[in-house]
Amino acid sequence: MIETISISELKPELLTRYLEVRKHSEDICAPLQTEDYVVQPIADVSPPKWHLGHTTWFFETFILLPNFPGYTVFDSQYNFVFNSYYETVGARVIRTDRGNLSRPSVDDVYRYREYVDQKMQEFLTSGLVAGPIATLLELGLNHEQQHQELLYTDIKYILGHNPLFPLYSGDYKTLINNSEERKIVRIPEGVYEIGHTGDGFSFDNELGRHRVYLDAYEISNQLVTNGEYLDFITSGGYTDFRHWHAEGWDWAKESAKAPLYWHQIDGRWMNYTFEGLQVLDLDAPVCHINFYEASAYASWKGKRLPTEAEWEVASNQFNWGQRWEWTGSAYLPYPGFKKEPGAVGEYNGKFMVNQMVLRGASEATPKGHSRNTYRNFFHAHHQWQLTGIRLADGISR
Amino acid sequence: MIETISISELKPELLTRYLEVRKHSEDICAPLQTEDYVVQPIADVSPPKWHLGHTTWFFETFILLPNFPGYTVFDSQYNFVFNSYYETVGARVIRTDRGNLSRPSVDDVYRYREYVDQKMQEFLTSGLVAGPIATLLELGLNHEQQHQELLYTDIKYILGHNPLFPLYSGDYKTLINNSEERKIVRIPEGVYEIGHTGDGFSFDNELGRHRVYLDAYEISNQLVTNGEYLDFITSGGYTDFRHWHAEGWDWAKESAKAPLYWHQIDGRWMNYTFEGLQVLDLDAPVCHINFYEASAYASWKGKRLPTEAEWEVASNQFNWGQRWEWTGSAYLPYPGFKKEPGAVGEYNGKFMVNQMVLRGASEATPKGHSRNTYRNFFHAHHQWQLTGIRLADGISR
Amino acid sequence: MIETISISELKPELLTRYLEVRKHSEDICAPLQTEDYVVQPIADVSPPKWHLGHTTWFFETFILLPNFPGYTVFDSQYNFVFNSYYETVGARVIRTDRGNLSRPSVDDVYRYREYVDQKMQEFLTSGLVAGPIATLLELGLNHEQQHQELLYTDIKYILGHNPLFPLYSGDYKTLINNSEERKIVRIPEGVYEIGHTGDGFSFDNELGRHRVYLDAYEISNQLVTNGEYLDFITSGGYTDFRHWHAEGWDWAKESAKAPLYWHQIDGRWMNYTFEGLQVLDLDAPVCHINFYEASAYASWKGKRLPTEAEWEVASNQFNWGQRWEWTGSAYLPYPGFKKEPGAVGEYNGKFMVNQMVLRGASEATPKGHSRNTYRNFFHAHHQWQLTGIRLADGISR
Amino acid sequence: MIETISISELKPELLTRYLEVRKHSEDICAPLQTEDYVVQPIADVSPPKWHLGHTTWFFETFILLPNFPGYTVFDSQYNFVFNSYYETVGARVIRTDRGNLSRPSVDDVYRYREYVDQKMQEFLTSGLVAGPIATLLELGLNHEQQHQELLYTDIKYILGHNPLFPLYSGDYKTLINNSEERKIVRIPEGVYEIGHTGDGFSFDNELGRHRVYLDAYEISNQLVTNGEYLDFITSGGYTDFRHWHAEGWDWAKESAKAPLYWHQIDGRWMNYTFEGLQVLDLDAPVCHINFYEASAYASWKGKRLPTEAEWEVASNQFNWGQRWEWTGSAYLPYPGFKKEPGAVGEYNGKFMVNQMVLRGASEATPKGHSRNTYRNFFHAHHQWQLTGIRLADGISR
Repeated sequence: MIETISISELKPELLTRYLEVRKHSEDICAPLQTEDYVVQPIADVSPPKWHLGHTTWFFETFILLPNFPGYTVFDSQYNFVFNSYYETVGARVIRTDRGNLSRPSVDDVYRYREYVDQKMQEFLTSGLVAGPIATLLELGLNHEQQHQELLYTDIKYILGHNPLFPLYSGDYKTLINNSEERKIVRIPEGVYEIGHTGDGFSFDNELGRHRVYLDAYEISNQLVTNGEYLDFITSGGYTDFRHWHAEGWDWAKESAKAPLYWHQIDGRWMNYTFEGLQVLDLDAPVCHINFYEASAYASWKGKRLPTEAEWEVASNQFNWGQRWEWTGSAYLPYPGFKKEPGAVGEYNGKFMVNQMVLRGASEATPKGHSRNTYRNFFHAHHQWQLTGIRLADGISR
Repeated sequence: MIETISISELKPELLTRYLEVRKHSEDICAPLQTEDYVVQPIADVSPPKWHLGHTTWFFETFILLPNFPGYTVFDSQYNFVFNSYYETVGARVIRTDRGNLSRPSVDDVYRYREYVDQKMQEFLTSGLVAGPIATLLELGLNHEQQHQELLYTDIKYILGHNPLFPLYSGDYKTLINNSEERKIVRIPEGVYEIGHTGDGFSFDNELGRHRVYLDAYEISNQLVTNGEYLDFITSGGYTDFRHWHAEGWDWAKESAKAPLYWHQIDGRWMNYTFEGLQVLDLDAPVCHINFYEASAYASWKGKRLPTEAEWEVASNQFNWGQRWEWTGSAYLPYPGFKKEPGAVGEYNGKFMVNQMVLRGASEATPKGHSRNTYRNFFHAHHQWQLTGIRLADGISR
Repeated sequence: MIETISISELKPELLTRYLEVRKHSEDICAPLQTEDYVVQPIADVSPPKWHLGHTTWFFETFILLPNFPGYTVFDSQYNFVFNSYYETVGARVIRTDRGNLSRPSVDDVYRYREYVDQKMQEFLTSGLVAGPIATLLELGLNHEQQHQELLYTDIKYILGHNPLFPLYSGDYKTLINNSEERKIVRIPEGVYEIGHTGDGFSFDNELGRHRVYLDAYEISNQLVTNGEYLDFITSGGYTDFRHWHAEGWDWAKESAKAPLYWHQIDGRWMNYTFEGLQVLDLDAPVCHINFYEASAYASWKGKRLPTEAEWEVASNQFNWGQRWEWTGSAYLPYPGFKKEPGAVGEYNGKFMVNQMVLRGASEATPKGHSRNTYRNFFHAHHQWQLTGIRLADGISR
Repeated sequence: MIETISISELKPELLTRYLEVRKHSEDICAPLQTEDYVVQPIADVSPPKWHLGHTTWFFETFILLPNFPGYTVFDSQYNFVFNSYYETVGARVIRTDRGNLSRPSVDDVYRYREYVDQKMQEFLTSGLVAGPIATLLELGLNHEQQHQELLYTDIKYILGHNPLFPLYSGDYKTLINNSEERKIVRIPEGVYEIGHTGDGFSFDNELGRHRVYLDAYEISNQLVTNGEYLDFITSGGYTDFRHWHAEGWDWAKESAKAPLYWHQIDGRWMNYTFEGLQVLDLDAPVCHINFYEASAYASWKGKRLPTEAEWEVASNQFNWGQRWEWTGSAYLPYPGFKKEPGAVGEYNGKFMVNQMVLRGASEATPKGHSRNTYRNFFHAHHQWQLTGIRLADGISR
């Protein structure tokens, strides 16, 4: 999966980094009431307490249990409750059932975290942490960071689909950066290299670095804004089948005719945000649109979405990180991709069908977690992530 | 709906009774953890906090708001959240969605109860409570008592479908009364009267008292026990279509081959109870079987279920109250049944199709709530109530 | 099931009657094109060729195979294809799959009928037909007559749901009899007897005759007309929840707001009939309404549907036979009902849950097939039979 | 869509070619009985009479109606019945409903074909056929050829899912070509060109020719055989999640554990073919596997599927045409792909999400219809096409 972490390099900061990452998950949940930890409005959204337990189970199952002599699991039934999709590690709770489980309680889950964190501290200072374990640890931390973003998006879904529209937290501040001047980046045709390289951490799906041939193309340095997307809506974009994929059109006919969390109230467009229900900010990058919507918008503009290779090659010429940006690339293995043996081999490869690649990062992505080779992926109909649109187009020779 | 409560009779105890009933709901929930109040594993089961809110909403909506001058609703959005099925009173949360709502929080719901109880105290001591209101109040209290039984059955479902099989409460004691000598009660053919009469409270579906002609029949003074039901299982009852209704057979082929909460673990029959997972008590009355199972069992024994008229006519000749007993009668209006105008008219009549009548009461039924004219009703496939079997048969002339 | 047919009485006409009934099924299908025999638009509707094959299979399986020495089945795989719901006789094609089978072809099915009819002729003239077989034969003929009505209703559904609205047959003439003077029949309270008696054929569900107590009631000698039902529609009957059962209301909100086959075209109400699309005949009895609609209409009129006992007791005081009339009675066993052993015991009893009784007959019912003790039954949501409404009401003492 | 057909070149043979293609569709259906034309066992399979009508509707709607002065449509309601997915041309019959329509009859459909063919003959010899029309005509003929392959696969599904397992035709002979010597083709890394070029017909999705960079790879000159695939089955391939995509694994757990049409009868593997139920031919290329199965097989062999670019670049070094070969490429637009305006623009582009590319051709593909740039596409779970597996792998530098 990952082979490039040099143990000598990482070791001094390992414990600090472990504790910081673990604390951040709990910080995200701090504004919640106990009840918010429990519910699961749709199958894609997991209860926050499940995220807290599942990330802990990862360290217990893959680090402590096989490597820390004498380690005793906190509760032998938690493997059943907190396993997500690892077929290797036995029966898992059906994903849609997570919201039915009132126990373990939130307090139990925090006790579980405390117990595992204590044991991890002992283990990380024990001198037993050899290279492959450090690699696994780094994977565990990045895994928890992925769930930190999911914690944000799932909490938003839980609160944003409650008829009382509760605030997430009065302290939360949405960061919008749209001060940069608009320009179109032009990239000439040629052979380029994409994929992760170097010593830092990466997921297995970013490896190995390889050549691609790109025709000349242009790509915007800016994301599509709410105001621009509203033009698409008001000019009938959701009722003109010509811009939609066939299955996107089926989706659009049955679903709301706007991004998730947009509500037209008394003729005014409102937007549910982490700061509560707000008047729609026309200058902010559009968010919570799915691949069908992103494609239809691009088609309506006479443009298209960039491929992931185009995005990566041009990525040093624009600021990215406000939204996960839908690309026109399906999530497929890079040349030479091989699954790792064992459970960690299930991490990425088995999802490589019927999903689309997103590039970038969002305001909910933990600092330092993403990079320009990072391959995020979701199904074409998913709206609940912090997704946006960057337009591209070919340049005729 | 109910016309027979004389206000002079009830008034002195009205406030006491109100407070007692309201307190009992909270006593039932006292052993719960906050998370247990929130989840909804299946559509038929409501979250405990919803029951607590909905019963409170009933008093607010039907008593305080129209009758107590100056009353201000606790939260104007609660009507949307806590209405159950009253089309008259506006949009309601789809029943399956109740488990998605983390807010109002459990604390909010208790505050809501406190607020309404305070206002009800003021109202009940205000001298403003005229006859029709007392009638409505009595309905509200009986309504809350019905939800008290549902609180028990829904809590049992929530905890009993959790892989950790948590206890409900260490204090709970199942009461089993099977000391009576077995005998067969014989009732001769003739015209009998059934239905509610007299001054006490009754639901509209028990009115009015009317004549029925019954052929001679016999009925057991005892309920079928777990041990007897186990004989049915071990002799292949669940795999012999001859004993089943066609749709019962479809149900049996797809579902578990035993009552709800029975688990065969290492060859031994265990039973999840309010006291936790227990070895099956062979002498206790069988519980948590649906109408299909009750009918199939009766067929296997060469008997049948009693009709509700047969049950009522014979009911003073046996002890009832341990289980809600499935009858062979569909839930239909009595002769002369008329819906009340307004929202309370929706209470019973609109459910009079495709459900079966149950008679008796259970260990979860609040004391004094049931009577031998009480018509409980559930769908034929429902197992989650505390249901049992009493056998009957015709007597050839 | 049936015990009362005296063999000496029936024998002379048996062969003639057999051949007449068998021919009538084929006469019903004569106007069809081959393709019309094949399709199954909804699970409740069976392809006409299936009806022709299934009724033949009944004689082959229950009469010839066990009783006619040396009989060879026409095709050993037809048991699999043409069995309907007899669990005793082995695996059956799932009901919804019937419309997927292009083979056996229509010609094959007619050859099958010819073969079985030839063998039945040999058998019926062989002197081997003893009493119990005559009983079974009579059951087989009544069974085929039931399917003759289904042939009509299923053909109507197939053609009436085709966008080309093809005629069934230019020769078909709808018979409407509404010349009788309207009057209200009044029946005093008392003990009455209902159920089949005498030597003639009956189904097991009509036996045995038994006493019922009826309160005084009134019942119309006329069916509700299309014009009267249209008043219900235009006065908002389908949008006023107060008249509907809860599950009827759910049905009404999702479905068409008129009887099956009614189409409002350019502001004019049209009705698909066996004679094609016609202007709605306001004087004809309303047809193709389900139990929810019949109940809601009655509620809107301040009346109710008669129980099946009320219908039967009063039935000699009005002309019936134009529509199957929904009653307010659930389809349940009469006192003393016992299933026959063997496959024929599956005929009726296993359907005695969650269906409603209809009384009378329709224009599609074969002559002589029905009687005033006949208990027809369908699910509350079914519209595709030729169903109508007769109003009743209690009379206050 | 296609711009490159020179009218002068095509004209002389145009009528002959039209008549040949049209006749071939009818030849494919010649062995059918009328009933076989009507049914639709699953949504993906269309009734043969629908294919015959739909391909005819294409010529009527896109050629005759807009271009042939005075043309009168055969039946104005056929647009509703035979439109498939062209939103531009109005309401279409929901795809799953096609099997409910007994009318138009098979004879009507043949009359429709005869009428349109007669008018096309008149039109094609009228001198009115200018360049863009010839282009559309060529599209119509290729469209009909696509449906010719679907006729074969849908007929096979209809007959192969009938419990009588009827033959398609005694004259049909499966052609298997596996005489060639096995070898591994090796292709060095570099920039290659793929996509259609030249004057011949192509679909819009094959245009325009463009460069791709390929890492060095190897690809087999042979397809995987039934015998090889049987090894995968017998060694537990369907029960080892490690080889499967997550959603493929969900599919495999719920579905049959072998290719479509394989039946293990009395311990022997049988295969339903156009020649009826046959003993499985171990040397024939495996057929009727979906993308999940193809991928899992490749994973089990330690190989992978080729990308569509790899396939196309190597395609002149092996014989292809026996099976549609699953590639590892998602069906996405080529660089510079633009939809045509109007209804023909809906032909391909709107399906470019969540489907996989197949390359090659099959025994059911009309002669001359395919080419090595042809991009066929189906959903990952589809088994009912004549699909096979060719293995590839990267070559380490």
